[in-house]
Amino acid sequence: MSGAERGARVMARLDQLARHSATPGALTRLYLTPEHRAAADQVAAWMREAGLAVRIDAVGSVIGRREGDRPGLPALLLGSHIDTVRDAGKYDGALGVVAAIEAVAALGDRRMPYAIEVIAFGDEEGVRFPVTLTGSRALAGTLDPASLDACDAAGVAMRSALVAFGAPAIGAAAALGYRRDAVLGYCEVHIEQGPVLEAAGLPVGIVTAIAGAARHMVEITGVAGHAGTVPMALRHDPVCAAAEMVLAAERIARETAGLVITTGIVAAEPGAINVIAGGARLSLDIRSGDDAVRHAATAALRAEIAAIAARRGVAVAIADLYEAKAAPCAPPLVGALAESVARCGVTPRHLPSGAGHDGLAMIDLCPIAMLFVRCKLGISHNPAESIMAGDAALAVAVLTDFLTRFDPRLTEQGPSQ
Amino acid sequence: MSGAERGARVMARLDQLARHSATPGALTRLYLTPEHRAAADQVAAWMREAGLAVRIDAVGSVIGRREGDRPGLPALLLGSHIDTVRDAGKYDGALGVVAAIEAVAALGDRRMPYAIEVIAFGDEEGVRFPVTLTGSRALAGTLDPASLDACDAAGVAMRSALVAFGAPAIGAAAALGYRRDAVLGYCEVHIEQGPVLEAAGLPVGIVTAIAGAARHMVEITGVAGHAGTVPMALRHDPVCAAAEMVLAAERIARETAGLVITTGIVAAEPGAINVIAGGARLSLDIRSGDDAVRHAATAALRAEIAAIAARRGVAVAIADLYEAKAAPCAPPLVGALAESVARCGVTPRHLPSGAGHDGLAMIDLCPIAMLFVRCKLGISHNPAESIMAGDAALAVAVLTDFLTRFDPRLTEQGPSQ
Repeated sequence: MSGAERGARVMARLDQLARHSATPGALTRLYLTPEHRAAADQVAAWMREAGLAVRIDAVGSVIGRREGDRPGLPALLLGSHIDTVRDAGKYDGALGVVAAIEAVAALGDRRMPYAIEVIAFGDEEGVRFPVTLTGSRALAGTLDPASLDACDAAGVAMRSALVAFGAPAIGAAAALGYRRDAVLGYCEVHIEQGPVLEAAGLPVGIVTAIAGAARHMVEITGVAGHAGTVPMALRHDPVCAAAEMVLAAERIARETAGLVITTGIVAAEPGAINVIAGGARLSLDIRSGDDAVRHAATAALRAEIAAIAARRGVAVAIADLYEAKAAPCAPPLVGALAESVARCGVTPRHLPSGAGHDGLAMIDLCPIAMLFVRCKLGISHNPAESIMAGDAALAVAVLTDFLTRFDPRLTEQGPSQ
Repeated sequence: MSGAERGARVMARLDQLARHSATPGALTRLYLTPEHRAAADQVAAWMREAGLAVRIDAVGSVIGRREGDRPGLPALLLGSHIDTVRDAGKYDGALGVVAAIEAVAALGDRRMPYAIEVIAFGDEEGVRFPVTLTGSRALAGTLDPASLDACDAAGVAMRSALVAFGAPAIGAAAALGYRRDAVLGYCEVHIEQGPVLEAAGLPVGIVTAIAGAARHMVEITGVAGHAGTVPMALRHDPVCAAAEMVLAAERIARETAGLVITTGIVAAEPGAINVIAGGARLSLDIRSGDDAVRHAATAALRAEIAAIAARRGVAVAIADLYEAKAAPCAPPLVGALAESVARCGVTPRHLPSGAGHDGLAMIDLCPIAMLFVRCKLGISHNPAESIMAGDAALAVAVLTDFLTRFDPRLTEQGPSQ
């Protein structure tokens, strides 16, 4: 089968998988729903066709295993997730599962000095239950047992949904975890969900890290007043202070390589056209693949915000809402992926992942790596999500080359700590 | 009676007037309500006590007249309004009426070479009906007859409310207007409703103009995106564009004497913490006592907004919501008031009125002037509105001196045009 044919089959299978949806004419496939079960069964069938031995684990992940040149060797894990957001695109998650199956199929009868497992996780998006990364956390041995009692909007507990899904009975959550010495690494193919590769004219790129992220809400208190009667020099206008803070955040992000800061929320209180606002608020979403870079930029921004507030005579309070550490990709895997990209005739381009992925959990188990595939206009979580068949074919070719040349000594781990 | 006694009587009468309210324990006195009628009757009684001949005109204004040294001379008009906003302060409007009555009382039996009329307008705030300045527009001959058919929230037409109020039957609206040659000018005492005099340590100030104002809404359309996946250099963020525009507006206002610009509304769409907004909006309220200054600043700001949008690759549309011309105070009256202020031992301070007043309508009839009285923290339209008795006494003294020395030749007008 040619590379183009493999790309075409990947695209056809992605179309086919998208039919398993809660909503006709659109794609919504939440964790442990009947459509998730149907998609899991379809993926299991494709895995078997590719020569994998398939099981579904206790939290609904589909796992297909292919032994190495002798049984019981440590496994390189491939895959992604098959749950979606509501009104989703066809490629987020599913591409990584289907491409991994295709790459394994491309290996044919060749036996490797390591085992391979292709995994289709069921809960990366975290839409149905107020938890996320359930499948990857289970494998990493970090699943909080309380997650199993989390309920969806209809009041159904995850534990009951797993029974309805037909997952094997669950024991202790921690017991779901893989042994570290049974695993060599986790490598995921995923659409970029951003515009970098398209802007660079490249079909694929190698991820350096899944960015760490923090979210803050900045509340500014100034002095409300009549829009006509308070001269500019006597104002303590929180909206003008907020504007300066937004631009300070943008400037710091622009000056710092590999960092992004977003102000997605900005608002004035009371928000009347003829009233100098008494208060204003703005949100900060700060991400970087390097936690030290993010912490330094955050400290610089906090100092700027305090200086702006002091200069303008307004009060400011910053609420820290959320923080997640970065998950750096393992240099040996990043290097090997880059070599495979180059051997496929593409200039290796390294970029961070600003969005979260199962690697955020898998990094607690093993070295991780990701290959990003260009997507149209960077659009994702949207029916307009789109990739090209040629790029899918290239991703399969890169992954196949990577598997063919992978040396298990690169990432071999000791026993679980 | 000493000046301090006159100040004390003004404060006592303002307390007394505040009892005429729709709401016990708070002050809400809307146009043509029973509490407005009660306040009008109280004001009429004080006018008669000060020797004025009182009538209530067809739109509910209380008008007290004092002839000059011979009957039928042109009149200098004094006064303000006795309607309030909801949950109002005691001084906005009422001070100007009570202080004018007090100044006339202070003239005693002295006959002037001009007549004086003290007017208590009933609709300056425009709260009850969707029109405003009804009393002053009627005198100026500019009342739109359609105003009489405007209805309040309960569906009561102004025309019916006037009958219930007990106003004399109304003829043609235009026929309510005064002849120009019967009027010498209109001079209003009013609380500043801003912080300028308090910041300057001055009890009173002389208004240069009632500011012209325009309101605009700026709508910015950028490119929405994932807060993690779009590098700073590839963003077209409407929130950052809005922030630059807010600061451009502030800078232009700071650099332009006698101009204020306020952004009371700012918002991002969709307004999610982890999404680069697709759109943003901000309001602009631009005021100046000099329309040419306002127009030049607005043109400069429009050019800046267009340049910011072009540089950032976002689209911008500016909706023009409202515009009112400035009403400049008449230099002869401003000069005479300033002399009286100086003679009362206070440094004359000139300042614009950023808020609207009955002078906006009266300027179509005659030259206008205003004397501002310091108010605490610039707070108005609020129960916390506050002035000092000494400042009220000073305002009465200034107005009395002004009346004593007023030369009708300063502002004498020809017959109506």
